Amino acid sequence: MPESNESSAQEATPATSRRRFLLTGGALGLGAAGAAAAAAGIHAVAPTREPAAPGDRVPFYGEHQAGIATPEQDRLAFAAFDVTTTDRTALMALLGSWAAAASRMVNGQEIGSVETHPQAPPVDTGEAMGLGPARLTVTVGFGPTLFDDRFGIADRRPAALEPLPSLPADLLVPERSNGDLCVQACSDDPQVAFHVIRNFARIARGRAVMRWSQLGFGRTSSTSQAQATPRNLMGFKDGTNNIKREDLAAMDQHVWVGSETDQPWMVGGSYLVTRRIRMMIESWDADFLADQEAVIGRTKIVGAPLGAEAEFDTVDLAAMRDGQPVIPMDAHIRLAAPETNGGVRMLRRGYSFTDGTDPATGQLDAGLFFIAFQKNAHEQFVPVQRRLGQSDALNEYIKHVGSGLFAIPPGLSGPGDWYGKALFT
Amino acid sequence: MPESNESSAQEATPATSRRRFLLTGGALGLGAAGAAAAAAGIHAVAPTREPAAPGDRVPFYGEHQAGIATPEQDRLAFAAFDVTTTDRTALMALLGSWAAAASRMVNGQEIGSVETHPQAPPVDTGEAMGLGPARLTVTVGFGPTLFDDRFGIADRRPAALEPLPSLPADLLVPERSNGDLCVQACSDDPQVAFHVIRNFARIARGRAVMRWSQLGFGRTSSTSQAQATPRNLMGFKDGTNNIKREDLAAMDQHVWVGSETDQPWMVGGSYLVTRRIRMMIESWDADFLADQEAVIGRTKIVGAPLGAEAEFDTVDLAAMRDGQPVIPMDAHIRLAAPETNGGVRMLRRGYSFTDGTDPATGQLDAGLFFIAFQKNAHEQFVPVQRRLGQSDALNEYIKHVGSGLFAIPPGLSGPGDWYGKALFT
Repeated sequence: MPESNESSAQEATPATSRRRFLLTGGALGLGAAGAAAAAAGIHAVAPTREPAAPGDRVPFYGEHQAGIATPEQDRLAFAAFDVTTTDRTALMALLGSWAAAASRMVNGQEIGSVETHPQAPPVDTGEAMGLGPARLTVTVGFGPTLFDDRFGIADRRPAALEPLPSLPADLLVPERSNGDLCVQACSDDPQVAFHVIRNFARIARGRAVMRWSQLGFGRTSSTSQAQATPRNLMGFKDGTNNIKREDLAAMDQHVWVGSETDQPWMVGGSYLVTRRIRMMIESWDADFLADQEAVIGRTKIVGAPLGAEAEFDTVDLAAMRDGQPVIPMDAHIRLAAPETNGGVRMLRRGYSFTDGTDPATGQLDAGLFFIAFQKNAHEQFVPVQRRLGQSDALNEYIKHVGSGLFAIPPGLSGPGDWYGKALFT
Repeated sequence: MPESNESSAQEATPATSRRRFLLTGGALGLGAAGAAAAAAGIHAVAPTREPAAPGDRVPFYGEHQAGIATPEQDRLAFAAFDVTTTDRTALMALLGSWAAAASRMVNGQEIGSVETHPQAPPVDTGEAMGLGPARLTVTVGFGPTLFDDRFGIADRRPAALEPLPSLPADLLVPERSNGDLCVQACSDDPQVAFHVIRNFARIARGRAVMRWSQLGFGRTSSTSQAQATPRNLMGFKDGTNNIKREDLAAMDQHVWVGSETDQPWMVGGSYLVTRRIRMMIESWDADFLADQEAVIGRTKIVGAPLGAEAEFDTVDLAAMRDGQPVIPMDAHIRLAAPETNGGVRMLRRGYSFTDGTDPATGQLDAGLFFIAFQKNAHEQFVPVQRRLGQSDALNEYIKHVGSGLFAIPPGLSGPGDWYGKALFT
């Protein structure tokens, strides 16, 4: 896929931005778009700098939301929100304001003027001024709980958004899990990514509160053939056999929601599973090299499947040596392989994290913030993780402590569209 | 200062690295350097890749430790450790092993082979393989508590390492404060910086434990005339009037310990103060622009002193308008200015942080991890912070929740030298 969002020619110039937001407000069917704008803290826009150079920008509008097929950026800021208003219109206005803000930030523009009026708070918090977007993408999703009886959309919940079941080895902490809404902000500059979730939280005031958040400091997958495979905090290359954006057939088969959905508003969307996977770093670091490689099923330095030579060599699950499988029966790559999971694949897009030390033990609170996009998590993530949770040799060294499932609606068609417009209208 | 560490010609090649470590071990005066190496988890070294290109490297050896006058890198990983052994030789061996490891990592090399033996843990944890050093610096220091009666160095404690007094507005949390040892790892790649504190913790096992740690995602100062002034999370440019490395006279006057010290082993060193300063982001973001600018004393977008036009214009503290000072009496830049503090200056080298949300309030746990280097914190940081803690208008929006004071010994002279060698021998 050359680029899932190809409407860069439609990107608003500064001069049209105010009109765009008014259109956005108008598209909400609200009588007073100006009032909604004011309530959202988004006033008339007067950008303080030029849009960034195109090479630094990822197009915002298109068939799919950016941040999925986009080549994985280096840094992540992720947040889940709980909606506190019970007013459907207020929720719609929030999603419209988020869309208007995101459409500006991905161009390296403030969400509104910093200098509107001395006796008013600046519209934008300002810490990203001058940084450029650094390939910023903003990806918004809806959790299962958004479809309860508060907003009149209970009958619009896709079957695929049934909450995730309990899975073997789960040690989930509620305060690190779930949420009504989510936002994934990815950029090559962490301050640009943080700026998104901070300003989204600010725009949401009175309507939604942050439930949990997570920074990721290094990507752990490649989502394009043009990217080298990075290493996770276990020191192993991660995501070698990930779906690549260039494989359009695989994207359609495994990632994008198509006509099979029971909810047409989700066509062109995807389902996001997040898992905060803490690594027992200290135990792992004391493990022998041969055992580490047997646990993963790959060599550490090269990343080759055991028994092979190079990273991208075929994973030969049938290979035997001395009457034993070369890739152990409980090796992570065997249990996670499409070949042993009925062909199931996911687009992984995770990040390494560390949040200091665990006060209870003094050990590093670090690991992998797993992110995967897929057509249906109940048919992709769930069966694979059930198997991994039961049998994966890696379980000795990891704990799943946070979890989220979110429906990612399709991309916005242009100014005037907003997150979930087809769901609410 | 062109570069405080100018011995790049002395950098070890891979072929000499084993010899270098043995020299380092020998320099400890230990009978069995090999045993010390093994205990440290540092075996014979067999680098898995070439040293990085020189442009990506900061020289390790020199008069001063790198990471002070070095142009501030983009990302930080900081950790404080408590020593658990009471064996002076074991502490010395730890400091030697840290020096050996750091001298390799700053060249983009693993601290030791990942492939030593299949039935042994890899020496290096591996997650930085292939990343290059990205201007990595490693800066090690000693807290006041290291000079108690455990290691026979109580009489070597500099007067300047007297613990910091209680200061106005302090809300310090012991678990985020102090420590026997510290390491500041700075790099343009956060995974490279994290790799240092993780491997330092691993090397320390059985001798020291991590007490607290802090990631910083964006620099908030410039320490070179070649760097633009960054913005902190208040959206203001920070560090405009910082000491710049090129100002050799200011570095000697304010930063480097000279012959005035009561402890000759500190000549060429410096004193590091860290403060974890939480910003009350939500309150700040609701404040009017004019008030924000009055609190700081500068304009938000340009960063000019109030009453002036450009960022680097002179701060005119005497200017009056309508009978009132143009820069308010309680403005941060007035109270922190050298002109109102008897000429006192510090080299600031801080970073923005966020550690998710505060579970008690749902608000962002974010702010500034303040780092300042100076000749004597009791004559520089303490009087300035006493004044700020009493009167700074900014106090409504910040809380000092963590604090550390560390003596940073001078730079290592070459292979065979180690952190604090002149202190212990």
